[in-house]
Amino acid sequence: MTTAQTEQTAAVSAPDLATIRAAHERIRAQIHRTPVFTSESLDAVAGAHLFFKCENLQKTGSFKFRGATNAVFSLSDEEAKRGVITVSSGNHGAAISLAARRRGISAWVVMPGEAPRAKRQAVEAYGGRVTECEYSMESREAVCKALQKQTGAILIHPYNNARVIAGQGTAALELLEEVPDLDIVVAPVSGGGLLSGTAIASKSLRPSIRVVGAEPKNADDAYRSFAAGRIESAANTETIADGLRAVLCPLTFSILRQHVDEIALVTEEEILSAMRLLWERLKLIVEPSGAVSAGIVLHNKIDPRGKRIGIILSGGNLDLDQIPFARAAK
Amino acid sequence: MTTAQTEQTAAVSAPDLATIRAAHERIRAQIHRTPVFTSESLDAVAGAHLFFKCENLQKTGSFKFRGATNAVFSLSDEEAKRGVITVSSGNHGAAISLAARRRGISAWVVMPGEAPRAKRQAVEAYGGRVTECEYSMESREAVCKALQKQTGAILIHPYNNARVIAGQGTAALELLEEVPDLDIVVAPVSGGGLLSGTAIASKSLRPSIRVVGAEPKNADDAYRSFAAGRIESAANTETIADGLRAVLCPLTFSILRQHVDEIALVTEEEILSAMRLLWERLKLIVEPSGAVSAGIVLHNKIDPRGKRIGIILSGGNLDLDQIPFARAAK
Repeated sequence: MTTAQTEQTAAVSAPDLATIRAAHERIRAQIHRTPVFTSESLDAVAGAHLFFKCENLQKTGSFKFRGATNAVFSLSDEEAKRGVITVSSGNHGAAISLAARRRGISAWVVMPGEAPRAKRQAVEAYGGRVTECEYSMESREAVCKALQKQTGAILIHPYNNARVIAGQGTAALELLEEVPDLDIVVAPVSGGGLLSGTAIASKSLRPSIRVVGAEPKNADDAYRSFAAGRIESAANTETIADGLRAVLCPLTFSILRQHVDEIALVTEEEILSAMRLLWERLKLIVEPSGAVSAGIVLHNKIDPRGKRIGIILSGGNLDLDQIPFARAAK
Repeated sequence: MTTAQTEQTAAVSAPDLATIRAAHERIRAQIHRTPVFTSESLDAVAGAHLFFKCENLQKTGSFKFRGATNAVFSLSDEEAKRGVITVSSGNHGAAISLAARRRGISAWVVMPGEAPRAKRQAVEAYGGRVTECEYSMESREAVCKALQKQTGAILIHPYNNARVIAGQGTAALELLEEVPDLDIVVAPVSGGGLLSGTAIASKSLRPSIRVVGAEPKNADDAYRSFAAGRIESAANTETIADGLRAVLCPLTFSILRQHVDEIALVTEEEILSAMRLLWERLKLIVEPSGAVSAGIVLHNKIDPRGKRIGIILSGGNLDLDQIPFARAAK
């Protein structure tokens, strides 16, 4: 098999449980095995038993480091020395940057100029080279292709990549190892990498589990796609959950249709309210995108009563100068 | 021994390691064994190996639940049925309230009217009955004595109580069980209960360890007392670390003089800077008082270079409407 074929295969075929287990073996020395938090007071709010998988405590502050590390460390030495490139509004870019630095290779990150300052700084702190683009998908792809041609770097797409998806699935793998008898597992959905990996791992380990994707009502492309049976874009993407504005790709859409039971939506107010509850009760910094999965449980978008529910808190990166529920200090 | 004698003995004699171990046995099923966090990026800031004992993740959001639980569960059934009373600007009051509820008894908490709203709400949420007083020590004691007389409740002082001190010492006990080879351990000092328990446990388990108390420069009574050889009050107590404004008592002062190597001071700016770093890098909500111990390490008030340093993050309760470094959201 040629390198080109390997890359193509990696990109288009869905991973299975064995692939996710292999990914876990590959990355386990590089990542944090993140803790699972519980809270009596949040259980009381939901009327359920909640198990929070704290990927906000993952290295680089989000689950993205799992998929990025699996992808970067799956490359052959020959591939790796060309460096890696990606398009990311932040967390995937930071994750790729650190994974590349760990492997001793270069990373280029194409990022909209308007991305949160904290996320851009993180990419640079991990040694990634930021190249700015416009916000449009066309601009991102054009800038990325030009840079790829110029550098020879290998593209690691944030979710249209089976190695990335397999890496993201390791969070649910750990969660179900620790709490095997979950009734429901909830993960946020944007491009669908985390939810795909979560769904494959969860349904393989526990076929009776209900897998729910959580999405902002203001960026409801996955919800619409699920309903329509084809990939649709959102009416708008004006959400505080800035990490959840991407659109599904054919690979993730096909995995979600096969393994996900439901996509549930939350409003902006519900996202903020959930985020504040997590900060108050868990004493954890969770970014708005990371609070969306908790939002659908704490605001009864699914019926949580009496259930054992795993909730993936996907990330904790936000600009502390712009905490959305903070008033100016005295 | 009469009940009155038992109470007196509990209040005036310093606990030893055996007492702290017994306290741990008594409370271990009630408390969280809090995690110890590490951070490569904070290690790089300090040039040291830092081990954060996360008492902000303790039940009720602070280490105070350890001492409160030990004191409440040490009472005889006859004593307990009278209920308990305390004076607290917040965290000890919340801790006593939950400990009392767990034991099925009443708790009265005397609290200045100006205490942070979030702390008052926590007391009430745990079933404690708040009675307001003026900010002065005289008012607190007068209100407390009147209420004690009226209700017959047993006073559990926030730190002038050996059972409370023994309970607080269990945090360092757990920390040194997990990381036995620490060079330095740092805890904040206010009335001195946590630092006393930390010092006794740490010096007993590891005589070579250096025990450092961390105090706001703006409420430097322990620093002055240490220097003067007698209990002194601070010049003022205008500090953002609102939990660190109490003054040592003879019991804690005598323990600190025996077991603590140094009291180090941090400015208000350094407290805020440390707190922000903890939020950013550990993704943990730590209150200003809880960040003081990290502040003396991250701002080089002691020489941390190359050392293995245990840092007790004492609490995570603050009003999220008044985050001190937040600007108003966009």
